[in-house]
Amino acid sequence: MKISSLQDLLLDQLQDLYDAENQLVKALPKMAKAALSSELRQAFEHHLHQTQGHVERLERVFEKLGSKAKRKTCQAMKGLVEEGEELVNAKPDANVLDAGLIGAAQKVEHYEMAGYGTVQTWARQLGQEEVARLLQQTLAEEEQTDEKLTQIAEDMVNLQAVGAASR
Amino acid sequence: MKISSLQDLLLDQLQDLYDAENQLVKALPKMAKAALSSELRQAFEHHLHQTQGHVERLERVFEKLGSKAKRKTCQAMKGLVEEGEELVNAKPDANVLDAGLIGAAQKVEHYEMAGYGTVQTWARQLGQEEVARLLQQTLAEEEQTDEKLTQIAEDMVNLQAVGAASR
Repeated sequence: MKISSLQDLLLDQLQDLYDAENQLVKALPKMAKAALSSELRQAFEHHLHQTQGHVERLERVFEKLGSKAKRKTCQAMKGLVEEGEELVNAKPDANVLDAGLIGAAQKVEHYEMAGYGTVQTWARQLGQEEVARLLQQTLAEEEQTDEKLTQIAEDMVNLQAVGAASR
Repeated sequence: MKISSLQDLLLDQLQDLYDAENQLVKALPKMAKAALSSELRQAFEHHLHQTQGHVERLERVFEKLGSKAKRKTCQAMKGLVEEGEELVNAKPDANVLDAGLIGAAQKVEHYEMAGYGTVQTWARQLGQEEVARLLQQTLAEEEQTDEKLTQIAEDMVNLQAVGAASR
């Protein structure tokens, strides 16, 4: 796609995010299955449900912009998913695996936070308020997921500290 | 590297970040040169200076962990830098280029924010308080850069709104 206007740039980045979300719908069940902690597994399962919603929301966004929902391979997400798979295949101790899965998932969430933050700004710039509102909803859910993952990681640190203190 | 302990995982991710920061030291001057807005150019130049500091800070971190500073190719950063280059080569209108450069840079910042957030948590978990403090300093600078870029993007939207109202 030739990018000459802000509308072109917006569509290009929406196609990137649409591909990223679709990749994530496939990756999250594997991450949930690999997780040891039930809290982490539930967080991945909950986010899978949200991610399916993000795919549909993007389809509404494309429709509102008079464009077809199209995927453009998101290389960054591909790299992040591969990194997560490598970790699972390396079969480290379960606690180490969970820590690594949280790290991988937070990179994914931050990629999406940056992406949605950008496209909702461009949508506003183009006067597409309804599109901006939809993208903002997804952004808020990605931020919540990131906070939830931080909290699970912090709990792991604290649990370990309690364990160390009682030894 | 075989990953079996949290220390292995920490070193693995530090090598990823060390490669990412080094890639960024090469990419930022090109992004600064391509930017139309002087505010954006200055932001990239300021962040180049910070990024050189992040490379050195990581070298101190490796030293404190008794390990050699080593790069492990960060595929995600490679993808993000290529995306930025493609945009510059597409030669869109200058305002569109600036908007796209900000978007690309915010993805880079978010990648790093996720990465540093994770490694500083692991360093604390391993009782490496000094290492965690160093990593936290870099994390704070990445967050400030992201906020600065958001502000520049918002200024662009507002400027455009003022322009539209006065027409």
